[in-house]
Order: sequence, then C-alpha cells, then structure tokens
Amino acid sequence: MTKIVDDPETFASAALAGFSRVYGRYVRLVKGGVVRSTAVPRGKVSVIVGGGSGHYPAFAGYVGPGMADAAVAGEIFASPSTAAVARLCRNANHGGGILLGFGNYAGDVLNFGVAAERLRAEGIDVRIVTVTDDVASAPADRHLQRRGIAGDFVVFKVAGAAAEAGLSIDEVERVTRLANARTFSFGVAFGGCTLPGATEPLFTVPRGMMALGLGIHGEPGIRDTKIVPASDLATLLVETVLAERPAGAHRAAVLLNGLGATKYEELFVLWGAVESKLRAEGIDLVAPEVGEYVTSLDMQGCSLTVMWLDEELERFWLAPCDTPVFRRGAGFKTQPAVLAENAEDAVPTFGPASGAAHESARCLAGLLDAMVSVLGEAEAELGRIDAFAGDGDHGQGMRRGATAARDAIHQAVAGGAGAKSALAAAGDAWADRAGGTSGAIWGLLLRSWSSAFSDEEALQDTDIVRGARLALDDVMRLGGAKPGDKTLVDAFVPFVAALETASADGLSLKEAWRKASVTCEAAAAATAPLSPRLGRARPLAERSIGHPDAGAVSLALIARTIADRL
Amino acid sequence: MTKIVDDPETFASAALAGFSRVYGRYVRLVKGGVVRSTAVPRGKVSVIVGGGSGHYPAFAGYVGPGMADAAVAGEIFASPSTAAVARLCRNANHGGGILLGFGNYAGDVLNFGVAAERLRAEGIDVRIVTVTDDVASAPADRHLQRRGIAGDFVVFKVAGAAAEAGLSIDEVERVTRLANARTFSFGVAFGGCTLPGATEPLFTVPRGMMALGLGIHGEPGIRDTKIVPASDLATLLVETVLAERPAGAHRAAVLLNGLGATKYEELFVLWGAVESKLRAEGIDLVAPEVGEYVTSLDMQGCSLTVMWLDEELERFWLAPCDTPVFRRGAGFKTQPAVLAENAEDAVPTFGPASGAAHESARCLAGLLDAMVSVLGEAEAELGRIDAFAGDGDHGQGMRRGATAARDAIHQAVAGGAGAKSALAAAGDAWADRAGGTSGAIWGLLLRSWSSAFSDEEALQDTDIVRGARLALDDVMRLGGAKPGDKTLVDAFVPFVAALETASADGLSLKEAWRKASVTCEAAAAATAPLSPRLGRARPLAERSIGHPDAGAVSLALIARTIADRL
Repeated sequence: MTKIVDDPETFASAALAGFSRVYGRYVRLVKGGVVRSTAVPRGKVSVIVGGGSGHYPAFAGYVGPGMADAAVAGEIFASPSTAAVARLCRNANHGGGILLGFGNYAGDVLNFGVAAERLRAEGIDVRIVTVTDDVASAPADRHLQRRGIAGDFVVFKVAGAAAEAGLSIDEVERVTRLANARTFSFGVAFGGCTLPGATEPLFTVPRGMMALGLGIHGEPGIRDTKIVPASDLATLLVETVLAERPAGAHRAAVLLNGLGATKYEELFVLWGAVESKLRAEGIDLVAPEVGEYVTSLDMQGCSLTVMWLDEELERFWLAPCDTPVFRRGAGFKTQPAVLAENAEDAVPTFGPASGAAHESARCLAGLLDAMVSVLGEAEAELGRIDAFAGDGDHGQGMRRGATAARDAIHQAVAGGAGAKSALAAAGDAWADRAGGTSGAIWGLLLRSWSSAFSDEEALQDTDIVRGARLALDDVMRLGGAKPGDKTLVDAFVPFVAALETASADGLSLKEAWRKASVTCEAAAAATAPLSPRLGRARPLAERSIGHPDAGAVSLALIARTIADRL
Repeated sequence: MTKIVDDPETFASAALAGFSRVYGRYVRLVKGGVVRSTAVPRGKVSVIVGGGSGHYPAFAGYVGPGMADAAVAGEIFASPSTAAVARLCRNANHGGGILLGFGNYAGDVLNFGVAAERLRAEGIDVRIVTVTDDVASAPADRHLQRRGIAGDFVVFKVAGAAAEAGLSIDEVERVTRLANARTFSFGVAFGGCTLPGATEPLFTVPRGMMALGLGIHGEPGIRDTKIVPASDLATLLVETVLAERPAGAHRAAVLLNGLGATKYEELFVLWGAVESKLRAEGIDLVAPEVGEYVTSLDMQGCSLTVMWLDEELERFWLAPCDTPVFRRGAGFKTQPAVLAENAEDAVPTFGPASGAAHESARCLAGLLDAMVSVLGEAEAELGRIDAFAGDGDHGQGMRRGATAARDAIHQAVAGGAGAKSALAAAGDAWADRAGGTSGAIWGLLLRSWSSAFSDEEALQDTDIVRGARLALDDVMRLGGAKPGDKTLVDAFVPFVAALETASADGLSLKEAWRKASVTCEAAAAATAPLSPRLGRARPLAERSIGHPDAGAVSLALIARTIADRL
C-alpha cells in the first residue's frame, strides 16, 4: 500500500521530479516526462516510450543510450495527455523520425495517436508500435489486440538498440514490430496495489488464491485458482507462454518480472524452475533477466516474457545499453547535451480572423459556458454512473476538461481568434487538462469538429453538421471504439446520423440538433442493458450491467444543453 | 507476503541457486554462498560479506569487481553457519588476507567470529568489521553496539573499492572501520514482512501508523507514530540522521533505501524532499542512490543512510564497481576465473589415536546418544519456552544439532578418532547443521571443550573440568553475552564455577558434576523473573517476563542427563 505521499494529485509528477534529480546524468525533466540529458547524434531515430505512472522502472528508467530517448509519464495508471506526448517528442526529436512505443491501452492509443497526427502535420515522421504481449488478454489470432505488459521492456530494448545502431525510421519500425510479434507474456497476481491516497487496494485476490492473466492495472484475468508451489507455477507460466512458440524458434530472450511486492528471493526461487523447464524444451536462453522491470506499484505477482529471437533481434537484445536501471556492455562515452531551451508547447497565437468568424467564436464560447455549468451540476451523478464500470472519475474529468476548454476559448476570443482556431484551442486545453480517455476523446472531438470551421467566414449551419461527421470519424479511427463497445460512440453515431438526416431533410440547425439530441439521449440510455462481455476497447466489468455508459450519458447531456441554446 | 515457495525449508538455498543461474557472469555458487566467477589478482585482499537471506540484493548481489569477493547466505533472517563462512572464505581467499563484513547481530558476530578463529588457525589473516549504522538501536556513545541496516551497502562499497585498489589488509580494515564510524541510518516501517511458509506477517503496524527505528527483522523500534506526509517524513529522517553529523562534515554519500514493498515512486517522491532538506543543511551530495539495496522480503518501509565523506572515503565511494545490482564507471575487463575445484569443507580424517583415547571417544559418543534421546523428548517443551522471547525454534535446533553431532562422533569413532578429535568433529557438525545462534554456541562449546582433551591419552576427570572452563570462556568471548543477558551463559557460569569448586574440594567427577548440574538447573530457572529490558546480546521481548531462557533450560537438561550417565 502506498504510504509515502504528500498530495495524491501531484504524486506522479513529484515522483518523476525526484527520479530526475537522482538520475540527472541520464535524464532531464520536461513537464510530463524526461528526455536524455546526454548528447544524441543528429539524424538518429528517436525512440519515445511512455504510459501511465506507477510502473517504475517503466518508463522513465528506460531512458539512456541504447534504449529510449524520452519517456512520457501520465498520472498513476492513466495515459499521458496528447499535449504531453507531443511536448516530449518535440524535446527529443533529433531529425531522424520518431518511433512511439507504448502498451496497447485505449487511453494511450488515443493520446499517442492524436499526438502523432499533430506532429506529422508539423512535418515530423512519427511511427507507432503498440506492445501487445499479454496472451491472457486476447486469443492468438488477435495478437495485435492484446494488452502490453512486461513485454514493453524487451520490445523497447530492441527498438532502442536498432535506433542507436543508426537504422532508418522504416527499419526501426520494422524491427520493433517484429520484436512485438515475437513477444509473449503471461502473469499471475496474488494481490492488488493501492493507489496513492486510497485506503483500499484496487482489487483483492482471495486468501490462498492467485489470479491468472490479470492486467497490471487490475484488469480482469482469466480465472482465480489455488496458489501452487513454485515449481508448478513455473510449469503454468512456461506452458502458457510456449503454447504460441513459433515453428523453428529455439533461441529466446526471457524476462521473469516482479510486479512490486513479490520480491527478489521469490523470483529467484521461481527462476530455478522456469529455467530448467525452458531448457528441457530445447530453448537456448539468451541473457535472461530476473527482477522488477514493469511494476504495478506494490502489486503482488509476476509474469514470464519470452521474445523469440532471430539473428537480428538477438543482436539488438544484446547490444550495449546504459539507463538508470539497465545496463549492458562496457557503457557509453557520453557528453552532456548542449542544453537548448526546453521546447515548450507553442503558446497559441491567433492569426487575423474576420469579424464574422470572430463573432462565431464568441457564440461558441457561450456554448462552452453552458457546458461548464451543466457538467458542474452533473459531476456527482456522472461519477456515480461511471463507478459501475470504471473508476468513478468521469464527472470530475468532464468538469475539469470543460472548464479548461472554456477558459481557453475565452482567451482565444480575447486574442481575436476566429471560430476554427478558438474551438481547436478549446479542444487542446480539454485534452491536456482533463486527463484520462474521456479527456483525450473530447479534446480530439472539439479539434476535429473545428476543422470544418473557418477563421475567415461566419459559421454556417452546414459547417456544424460537417464538423460533427469529421469529429465522429476521428474519434472512431483514433479511439478504436466501435458501436456496441459501450462507449460514447454508441450515442455519437446515432446523433451524427440523425443530425445529417434532419439537416438534409431541410430542417433548421436548431430543429435538426434538437432531433439528434433526442436520438442521442435514447441511445445513451440503451447502453444500459448490454450483456456482460469484454468490449473491444476496454474491459466491461460485470457490475456495470444495467447501467448506461457514463461517456454516452455525458455526450447526450451536452447535446441537450446545446440544443437549448442554439 | 511470500507466495512463491516450493519448500520453506529450502527457500533460501533455492533462491541463491536461482540467483547464481541468472548471474553466472558474476558469481559461482558454493554451498552456502557465492564467490566471484571472474579472475581476481593473486594477493588482493578478499572482502567477504554476508548474513541472513531475505535482504536481496544484500548480500549476494554485491559480489563482483570493485565490491565483494564472496557473500555468505544463511537461512531467511538467520546467520550463516560457522562452517559456511569458513567455506566461502576458503573459496575466495586470494592470499592477501580476508576482511569479513556483516551487520551487528548476535548470530552473525558468533558465526563469523568463530570462523575467523578457525581460519586464523589455518594461517589466513582474517579481519572483522561489523556494520553498526542504525541510530535507533543504541545511543551515540555506543555506536559500535548498534545494529547494521542499509549502511551495509555503503560500507561494503568502500571496503570493496579499497581492496580492489590494492590496499593491504591493514589499510582495508582501517578504511572500512572509518566508513562504518561515519555511517548513520534511520528507518521507518509501515508493515511487516511474511516469512516463506508463514501465513501471518512477522509483525504488524497499526493502520495509519508507522514504526520508527524498527529493525529489518522486526526488532523493536523506538515508538509508533501517525503516518505523516512525505515532506514531514523527510524532515524526520534527515533531522534524526543529521543529529550525529561530525564537526566539519559537509560532503556525504546518501542512500534512500526501500525495504521491499515501499516502491520506487514513493521513494522518488520522498527523495525530492530529502534532497532539498540536505542541501538546505549545506551538505554536498555525492552520487546519491535511491532504490532497494537492503530489503527485508516484502516489508513496507524505508531508511535514510548518510556516510560522511573525507577525500579517501569519497574516492572509494565513487570508484568503479560492477555487480549484479550496482555498477559505477565504465565497467571492468574481466576474465572467467580459472576454475579450480570448489574448496569444500575438509573431510575430517583422524590421526592415530591411542587405544585409551579411542575408548574415551566411545564414552563421549554414548553421552551424545543420551543427549539426542533427551532433546528429542524435550523438543516441543523447549520450543514452547523459546516462543515467549524468540521464534520458537530452539527445541528443533537443539534436536537437529545434537543429532548431527551424534552422527559425527560415531563416524569419528568408527574412523578411529581419539576423544579430542571426536568431540571437535561433533561440535563442527552441530554448528553446521543446527543453524541459528544456539547451533553456533553449541558447536563452539563442544569444540572448545575438546581442546582440553587428547588423542593420545585416556580422558582424565581434570581434563573435563578444564574443558568446561575453556568452553565457557570461548562462548562468552565470541558470543558476547554476559551474565544477566538471559542466555545460556546465565546457567553456564554457575555450572562451571560449581564444577570447579566441587572438583577442587576433592569430589569425584560424578559427584562434582551432579552438584554442578543442580546449581545449573536452579540458575536456569532463575532466568525467569528478570525485569523487562534490552539484553546486550539480543532484545528481550516483554512477553518473555516470567519465563526462563530456553538456552539455559536446555543446558541444564543436558547437564542433568550427563550426570545420570557418568
């Protein structure tokens, strides 16, 4: 249980700051992450990794020559914001392109994905490889839909070595994808971790039992079973991971990873049995590692990872590397980086907007005011609904995001912005300040919607309808959710369809929006009676049956609020 | 809580074996410990460290160029046996003398101390430095009586660097003593660890509280207090450790150590505040370390260690080092050690003994038979008595040790040994197989007693009386217990005195022993009503008030058994 805390709200950033003070010879703190403090050759591909905090040494401990160029760190177990990802990329861009590596979780997919789009628009060649090693999270024929767990470490090691060797961005991406395709992990948990400030663990495992295939944030596992002796546990781990051994594979990088409170002596006891069983299967072990490489605060449990090597992967797995927590070979001769100013976020400046477009922006700001007011009133209720399936922070996140967006749009209006720039600024502020998946979704939604607008002309009803479609498309493409996954998409799809139909039928925007808003509310309510199953984008806890999705409900609420103001 | 276990009895050795399989490039497994697997220059001083298991990376993780030559590993939280210490020393002796380093605990003091005497008798120059950094365990004017906790790491780092630099054994000893004298630690615990096979933790801390100055095996602390925010905890740790800042000291090696389940993010949060406070005190931090360096299984807590540097200590603190868990500088060019056979324990061979001495040995073997029988019957009762003040394993240890001693003496008799060699062999077997402090005491007691005997002549009554005095002297000198500490010494002192007096008064051995045995029983019973206080040699739990010391009781039981057989 986490006991050393000042303010739970700033725990993750305080930990990152403390880390960067200890390891200044490796890293430099940038808001939301760390970059190498040592000089990097111009033109090298940058490997930038990240995800939620609470997994140390993942991900900040991986930064250094031979491995990552930067790490982005979100709040505990929460994706970093789009803005943070973009910020770290700008600070660690050496001109050779950027490979973004992270575990396959909805929030990360979204935030890294949106950041990549923004950076590409700035002319930076950004590639994405999501790590999908957890065999418990999806069947073998859906390898790329699996979660990323301790496989992060071995995949990023290979990516970092390939980049350090001077490979092109195409090649680094190819090698990293190959590493991920050949990496398989399986874990067990004996008990859950406790978040800073919380008094109870995220989950518990019944006494004498262990949970098979549980995720590193408490995601549901396959099943609970009795704790078995170390040698039987070794058999279970080895047999499960080896079930997907590729034909002909016989050399492997192996990682036995502890999750935090399962300690070294236990891991070494287990390793004795694991190593024997792997050798008995005819596997040559190449530089195996046993220890804590991807933790989950003080969670009790461990996982076994196997990366099947070919000549190329083996070379990169064994290549020199020097980071705060992991070192191979004789080290690197490093020079401190020539310290340019941190590339902070661009402060938005607004180009000349026409008076009409500026007036439209002012109208949009009024809508944001209304949203803030409604979301403030609904905060507790949205939290209550969210708690059935999630961690109950939806109301808080929406209120915080909308408030940041409102402040930003008023600032933009004061700066003379037109409708397009003003709404884009509001979206970016929402994404950066709300946190979580819903913050990223709403940031993306507003920014994409704004792309149908203009800074030169007054807002037309048709712009608004076209923007809705663009927003929906981007949310589905980058968020990865499909109708039926019990997300905001379940209400957004019928809303946009109804808006388009009513508009095509010649109704005024106000009438069309009113109709779409009613459709949206009905769809949100209809997310309640879904049967229990795992959604594609996020696990659906059984206890949420009969309760609607909080994201769909808040969308409907906002739609209705706007309908009343148009 | 420890969950990955095959057999709790073999947990520590299985962990050590697993460790040595992962880190074969650094270490080679020898029964009871590990030695460097890389070549070491002839004539280098060997730094050999150790203690109980359960503290990884202490101590096996410290073995490698620039730090330790070998580590001895006892059972979980139990001193390694005298035989194991001696064995590791023989395997890691490079001809320059041996520095033994370990934390200041009764069992370790005894076993390393006795091993050192044996090795000195073999012509090896062995020095001992006990680490005494825990300011909570004794006041400042009794620094050398303090326990060793995380200071082990910094003191051994300096010792290893001094040895690697080619210093003589005198100089390595001097520098190591200096490092210890300038090292101060203070720790807090939030919760206890659970031993392999146990279902409950060794101790608990009330919810919302923390224990100040608790030892790394659950030894009593100073007091419990409410958990405070991280910044207040930093103040507490810094102020306590700095209370003993030497005049003029302003440069320091600093270690913020996690005990196992207090995780990295928490340590980094704490470090931010600790570093600021140390700097505010005008202290220059030299290569501080934050992480897990001396753990206590999955105990929750942390400690702050400061070693005040002078030019020499700073040089050794910063010197290159390359071990499984800790590395400084660019690494070492190492060669595998030329693998001689492991220097195993000498198999005792018995020189020619006279018929009379051989017959005496046979009589002694008969006494051991009787002891085994009596201790077998008394095992449960001795365990029950021990449980009031200790961990309740006294009966088991005595039965196991006596059985090993009996087997050894019969083997010696079958090999033709005389009384002296036969009893010495019995003592060595007892120490090596019983484990714990009582095993070491009894091994020493028999071996010292045997030094009054002969392999040439029949045993005389006067030899037996003289042997008793030699045994008592060695037990007190090496064990460090004084009368009144509530140990076996409380019964042994009056036994020997009574034996000597009665013998001097002209009584036969049988009569004298009978009288001494009655005195011994009374003295053992009198250990019961002691008032609560900390004994010098070991903490006396309050719950033991009114109960006699198990070691004194078992001595009296053995004395009576022998009286019946003489």
